[in-house]
Amino acid sequence: MPTFIDIHHGMVGITQDGLAEAHAEDLALQAEEGVSFERAWADPVSGTVVCLASGPSLEAVKRVHIHAGHPADEIYEVPLEV
Amino acid sequence: MPTFIDIHHGMVGITQDGLAEAHAEDLALQAEEGVSFERAWADPVSGTVVCLASGPSLEAVKRVHIHAGHPADEIYEVPLEV
Repeated sequence: MPTFIDIHHGMVGITQDGLAEAHAEDLALQAEEGVSFERAWADPVSGTVVCLASGPSLEAVKRVHIHAGHPADEIYEVPLEV
Repeated sequence: MPTFIDIHHGMVGITQDGLAEAHAEDLALQAEEGVSFERAWADPVSGTVVCLASGPSLEAVKRVHIHAGHPADEIYEVPLEV
């Protein structure tokens, strides 16, 4: 299953609870697309959130975030990893 | 120890060997700054590389990548994580 990293901008002031809630929304919706969101990191100062996921396609990852109400600004398939 | 995510652009065509070599350069230099590079992911199509690290400061992470010859285009401190 391919791995993806997606990036959200503009989430200045996001809190740990807000990140956990957004992640829970993804988890609640991911099965319909066969996606598995694994981890997410947030910088509340710049408003940047980075998510690590696996799934059948970039479009599938994109759709889960859209369905959850927080579309990603960038999504990359990352076939290389160390 | 704070966690950081940094992003490199323009690495179109990067290979698994190239990613491993760049990561090894970071690992060889990180002790001088008290940084620990943990994982890195790469998309050779868009040329995007994302690194996960911990260290004493954003500037310390930045300096290791500069010293290794591959400065990051973006670095974020990510105090929130799920």
